[in-house]
Amino acid sequence: MFYTDNKLQYPVRVDAPNPLFARALQQAIGGVEGEIRVAMQYFFQACGARGNPKFRDLLMNTAAEELGHIEMLATAVALNLEGAPLSLQEQMEKDAAIGAVMGGLNLKNLLSSGLSAMPVDSDGVPFDMSHIYASGNIAADMTANIAAESTGRTLAVRLYNMTDDAGMKDMLQYLIARDTMHQNQWLAALEELGGFAAFPIPNSHPQTEEKGEFSYTYLGFHADGSAPAQGRWSEGPSIDGKGQFTSGTLTPSPAVPDLGKAKPNSGAQTEQM
Amino acid sequence: MFYTDNKLQYPVRVDAPNPLFARALQQAIGGVEGEIRVAMQYFFQACGARGNPKFRDLLMNTAAEELGHIEMLATAVALNLEGAPLSLQEQMEKDAAIGAVMGGLNLKNLLSSGLSAMPVDSDGVPFDMSHIYASGNIAADMTANIAAESTGRTLAVRLYNMTDDAGMKDMLQYLIARDTMHQNQWLAALEELGGFAAFPIPNSHPQTEEKGEFSYTYLGFHADGSAPAQGRWSEGPSIDGKGQFTSGTLTPSPAVPDLGKAKPNSGAQTEQM
Amino acid sequence: MFYTDNKLQYPVRVDAPNPLFARALQQAIGGVEGEIRVAMQYFFQACGARGNPKFRDLLMNTAAEELGHIEMLATAVALNLEGAPLSLQEQMEKDAAIGAVMGGLNLKNLLSSGLSAMPVDSDGVPFDMSHIYASGNIAADMTANIAAESTGRTLAVRLYNMTDDAGMKDMLQYLIARDTMHQNQWLAALEELGGFAAFPIPNSHPQTEEKGEFSYTYLGFHADGSAPAQGRWSEGPSIDGKGQFTSGTLTPSPAVPDLGKAKPNSGAQTEQM
Amino acid sequence: MFYTDNKLQYPVRVDAPNPLFARALQQAIGGVEGEIRVAMQYFFQACGARGNPKFRDLLMNTAAEELGHIEMLATAVALNLEGAPLSLQEQMEKDAAIGAVMGGLNLKNLLSSGLSAMPVDSDGVPFDMSHIYASGNIAADMTANIAAESTGRTLAVRLYNMTDDAGMKDMLQYLIARDTMHQNQWLAALEELGGFAAFPIPNSHPQTEEKGEFSYTYLGFHADGSAPAQGRWSEGPSIDGKGQFTSGTLTPSPAVPDLGKAKPNSGAQTEQM
Amino acid sequence: MFYTDNKLQYPVRVDAPNPLFARALQQAIGGVEGEIRVAMQYFFQACGARGNPKFRDLLMNTAAEELGHIEMLATAVALNLEGAPLSLQEQMEKDAAIGAVMGGLNLKNLLSSGLSAMPVDSDGVPFDMSHIYASGNIAADMTANIAAESTGRTLAVRLYNMTDDAGMKDMLQYLIARDTMHQNQWLAALEELGGFAAFPIPNSHPQTEEKGEFSYTYLGFHADGSAPAQGRWSEGPSIDGKGQFTSGTLTPSPAVPDLGKAKPNSGAQTEQM
Amino acid sequence: MFYTDNKLQYPVRVDAPNPLFARALQQAIGGVEGEIRVAMQYFFQACGARGNPKFRDLLMNTAAEELGHIEMLATAVALNLEGAPLSLQEQMEKDAAIGAVMGGLNLKNLLSSGLSAMPVDSDGVPFDMSHIYASGNIAADMTANIAAESTGRTLAVRLYNMTDDAGMKDMLQYLIARDTMHQNQWLAALEELGGFAAFPIPNSHPQTEEKGEFSYTYLGFHADGSAPAQGRWSEGPSIDGKGQFTSGTLTPSPAVPDLGKAKPNSGAQTEQM
Repeated sequence: MFYTDNKLQYPVRVDAPNPLFARALQQAIGGVEGEIRVAMQYFFQACGARGNPKFRDLLMNTAAEELGHIEMLATAVALNLEGAPLSLQEQMEKDAAIGAVMGGLNLKNLLSSGLSAMPVDSDGVPFDMSHIYASGNIAADMTANIAAESTGRTLAVRLYNMTDDAGMKDMLQYLIARDTMHQNQWLAALEELGGFAAFPIPNSHPQTEEKGEFSYTYLGFHADGSAPAQGRWSEGPSIDGKGQFTSGTLTPSPAVPDLGKAKPNSGAQTEQM
Repeated sequence: MFYTDNKLQYPVRVDAPNPLFARALQQAIGGVEGEIRVAMQYFFQACGARGNPKFRDLLMNTAAEELGHIEMLATAVALNLEGAPLSLQEQMEKDAAIGAVMGGLNLKNLLSSGLSAMPVDSDGVPFDMSHIYASGNIAADMTANIAAESTGRTLAVRLYNMTDDAGMKDMLQYLIARDTMHQNQWLAALEELGGFAAFPIPNSHPQTEEKGEFSYTYLGFHADGSAPAQGRWSEGPSIDGKGQFTSGTLTPSPAVPDLGKAKPNSGAQTEQM
Repeated sequence: MFYTDNKLQYPVRVDAPNPLFARALQQAIGGVEGEIRVAMQYFFQACGARGNPKFRDLLMNTAAEELGHIEMLATAVALNLEGAPLSLQEQMEKDAAIGAVMGGLNLKNLLSSGLSAMPVDSDGVPFDMSHIYASGNIAADMTANIAAESTGRTLAVRLYNMTDDAGMKDMLQYLIARDTMHQNQWLAALEELGGFAAFPIPNSHPQTEEKGEFSYTYLGFHADGSAPAQGRWSEGPSIDGKGQFTSGTLTPSPAVPDLGKAKPNSGAQTEQM
Repeated sequence: MFYTDNKLQYPVRVDAPNPLFARALQQAIGGVEGEIRVAMQYFFQACGARGNPKFRDLLMNTAAEELGHIEMLATAVALNLEGAPLSLQEQMEKDAAIGAVMGGLNLKNLLSSGLSAMPVDSDGVPFDMSHIYASGNIAADMTANIAAESTGRTLAVRLYNMTDDAGMKDMLQYLIARDTMHQNQWLAALEELGGFAAFPIPNSHPQTEEKGEFSYTYLGFHADGSAPAQGRWSEGPSIDGKGQFTSGTLTPSPAVPDLGKAKPNSGAQTEQM
Repeated sequence: MFYTDNKLQYPVRVDAPNPLFARALQQAIGGVEGEIRVAMQYFFQACGARGNPKFRDLLMNTAAEELGHIEMLATAVALNLEGAPLSLQEQMEKDAAIGAVMGGLNLKNLLSSGLSAMPVDSDGVPFDMSHIYASGNIAADMTANIAAESTGRTLAVRLYNMTDDAGMKDMLQYLIARDTMHQNQWLAALEELGGFAAFPIPNSHPQTEEKGEFSYTYLGFHADGSAPAQGRWSEGPSIDGKGQFTSGTLTPSPAVPDLGKAKPNSGAQTEQM
Repeated sequence: MFYTDNKLQYPVRVDAPNPLFARALQQAIGGVEGEIRVAMQYFFQACGARGNPKFRDLLMNTAAEELGHIEMLATAVALNLEGAPLSLQEQMEKDAAIGAVMGGLNLKNLLSSGLSAMPVDSDGVPFDMSHIYASGNIAADMTANIAAESTGRTLAVRLYNMTDDAGMKDMLQYLIARDTMHQNQWLAALEELGGFAAFPIPNSHPQTEEKGEFSYTYLGFHADGSAPAQGRWSEGPSIDGKGQFTSGTLTPSPAVPDLGKAKPNSGAQTEQM
């Protein structure tokens, strides 16, 4: 169950409204690396968490935090859009730099939402909830969360480098710090689940049931049969501690795949039957 | 540049065609945990890899392998569909169990592709290439790959548990083993990039520019102010080795967010201006 | 800013787990009439609300409520999925009715989320955030909210009629009641904005700038020129009180639309130039 | 059954082709507030209309009108694109204002459709037919139509404010007038269905089966327990005339949601079982 | 401009309502091979047609026909859904064959549209207007139309084979005949544009500007350098009459692709710079 | 099974990096006319090919070629992005032409992928695999391939006309030549399947089962009953050689479509029952 108040987690201040930066900030709302993604991902992972209840609490608590981040960014987008021109004639004739602003906007931020934020990315593409990874396997979920926060902080850093607005930089310094924490937090949760020993995920599947000769071998697929670049992945103990890396090539299955003829009445051409 | 042959990496054999299992296998082709996703993700990460060229090679080589996995699964889907009824009258009257098969199919596997595989998931939803995470940050890419292989192997194990067809179980034992390797492989690549010291990602951003007091604190968002569940994430050294976990609460920003009045000509109601 | 606790708004009890009903409930989570839609719609409308701040509060407060509804439904889905078979062999041979269950599932609820809820609809299609209508016009937003709650309550009633599980019926009686309130609530907010006099939306556009002869005329497009069915929409005062309904036909523009020839270098065929 | 001719409903004239305005107009074709949406929504509502046949006629007749609106706008887009540059070298060196045009285009209007309209929005996102709300409940459909025309007219007004092309302004004055009529028309249809007494929708569900104590109460979800902003929605008779608005808070369900342990063979981690 | 009447092009009769066949018919409405696709494709091609105006007329006239096909199919879906159960208890206990029906439905046809057709495919996936191919090149458009009618007739034949309902078979015999005509019609239009001599499309591009040594050579990409299967495509005059087919292999570009180092401030890892 | 090497099929050279052209090139990667589409379409057609195995070989061999085209284009995008500004302050003040560049970028090429290619189109919309047409009918597949290469070459020509970079022009001359070959190649494959005699597709359906009086008649749908423009499609032998073109009008079905009343418990309004 959720509650709200009329406050923001951290001050959102825009010194010089910049509609192009509003467009860029949309990526942090509705991009696949954005805050809707993490808020909803932690929410659904929490709702489906089975086993130790502290993970449900950890996930839902963080989902609440991320909802507040969407709110901060949506406020920042609206404040940056305050400077957007509303008509083509305001700009095209006098000033090409302002002209670039109109052309550079997500026009939906003007036409659909009236100078407000939308759940879309920086090119106006709506967020698609298939990006909510909630696998029912708590360790797999943690890897998805580490990935989400890694791409999320990368995005926040790029936004930080893109602007020289002191208010926006201050807000992003807060969000970057929280991404630092969240990367560490999910790494810590994975450590509680065994760390590297949690791999291969899912650990509930008996490894005796997999084809062991392929489990720790780096296979080469170079057309000329040459070995691909070697590295930590081709020798030494495997990271999960359960095998030894080797490298090699594959003997393909000798049979050529053949589906035979098409069934009558299946809508194929006569020549296929 | 890519090459092919007329072979499969590993034999694909279906002892008793099962159209419902064909539907389930579609998830491993066109689901977000499936093989199109990893093939294309490694492909695009390779195409955008900057820095040490061995990562490009590692990624493109593995992309080639994954393309072959799609091919194996597509063959398995087509072979399982061989047993599908082509008409409602074949089944509805005589045998309810067969009736369940027709109802349980992805009908597109029959109507759109004529008993062949499609780039869709187990509910017939087409794969959307926004799931290709290729961030331009090689460490973030590795976390995305670890996550992809973790959910991928979880899916393969679920498919393995779902069938008792010996041919299909054999094929899945191969694919599960390769997922074991790939989880380890990307963990190994991350180790080459510094392991935990690669965090927070991106490591090129100076941490002095983030709000340090929020970087390693587990914040609580319980409505009654009670502390959320504690764990490895709330005390001890941070996993990246650059801070100390603490836990606490947040003092919200005192100002209520206020966008003020709507601009004239912005399409708002008069009452908003 | 958002807060959570470890509770549900209303008890969620499933007496007899039914995986098919789990699939149906998914529509109330990730369908276009579902709870993600309203939660996010009110959230984004709140974030972009300009003018009287009480609307921001009304919207954000209700967004918090709807987040709790997603949580309830996600719990209900997971509880209903407890009875799902995990393998085809568990069922196909012995019992066709159980067979129908496996065929009737969203397979992703099994394969992707491990018997948990997902942000998808009853056919496994992920929710697409383009359904978040937040127009920047507060009256237009209210009409969108009335529509959302009308289709939402229709869905809830259909789910209620579909099940005979006492626990599920009890939960749905709560959700149906809240939809009753929310329909009334947005109608009330529209009344505060002037009720019918708020139309035509946006009311900030001077009606003198529209082609008045077309503003209150019900035009017929029957091929034989016969009048379409008449009703309240073809006579009497208009509902907005600003005109008089009439009915009639249209004199088309005499000119045939003609784009002329294609430009050289535009990639057209030579014959088009 | 549909018929066509070689005419337009209303003249479409572009005095000074403006490719940026072509992009903006795309929102009125393929945006969620656009004409494809209403044409197809009324079409499908008509096809599924049960009960009094005059509603089928009303809906299909209006669908025919809206198809003609798409045609007008598509012509307007093509005419505005006549001025678009076809090469980067035409512009980048000489004139930054023209440079802004190329950058500001939906490039697909050039690359995919050769200077013609497409069924996409102003940011190039294709229209998705999930936006066709046709619920099988005629009153719910009317609320969806009122909402569609409210956001549609808001969009048309924004486009009108954006351009100073006399031809385009004239065309938009026609479309804005038709939106005025259509808002009123659907309000009138709703009046025929009982007006406010049609609520709560669906009215066929006996309200005795809902939890009446929640049906007309405005619940507060402020974290500190303070009352949210009061208004018409928190006191007085409900708009549907069937209850009395009150306001209050909720006693959450005491039980903490708990899904227990994961099932064996469900692909979870061992720690969850 | 469009007109309608209250009639159907051809009688739609369902002798024995079959909800599973309703689901299958949805593919012919909202599938990528379905009638929305062709109706909208011809509509947008017409709106963007430049050059000889008879093509605009041909396209728009056929668009009108296809709109009527959607209407017929939507009626057929609704009539077939008349037999659908509305509750799980109606069926699960008594009759597994009926149970299969509920599981086999697109649940949205029940939950979202109240036993009516929707613009979705047979697995409930909404139609996405990116499938409207309207290239601005009239010959390319004709090839897209031939392809659309070829897959469309294949679908109609599969539906015909799936049912034994005399009414449905009769309706499909009409639709199959129209697809026969439409395949021929677009082939005929292509013949007017030069037939094979229209290729390569676009014919306005001077072939002297392409690398002629690659224009008519069938290149082999077999990993072992063996020649791929030969056929009409590897010898004899090319179909466009402008070259001679040969076959051969490719000498790759000697340089290894190398993007060099990542730029500072681009969000990459330090190791990439 | 697939193999790779570290080479490109043809040199990719960018003389003057142009971020706007990078955006345009994205259409050739992730647009519906782009290389992902053909690579995956030929791949899936190959995997589902039944009948003469040489078609599987032809398709898979060409899929391998097209994967290499994606690689070339992805390299070209990354090289063109080298010149992109990373911050708004780099440009807005000094130079409006550079300002247009930032506004004209797909911002995701900067924010999501760090100056690398993505599987999206020129407006940042991700490729959706529903565009992979693989029908199970080999002749229908060939028509889809001819269409894909026709729109593909049209796109390549437009890109060629857009740039004056000698390196890019050289690369596009190669790709245009390959599209010439591929158009011819699929036409040749269709010739092997009977050429025009393969129509109507599927040829396995007995034409005696369709309503022959509608199979070769060009029907008019002009509202005033006038004949639509005549052409090769309205007289002479049909292109498939199996009929004679005529033209005419249609006598609609006399019955008005009528779904009757809504079922109780179906969620309709009481007035519909």
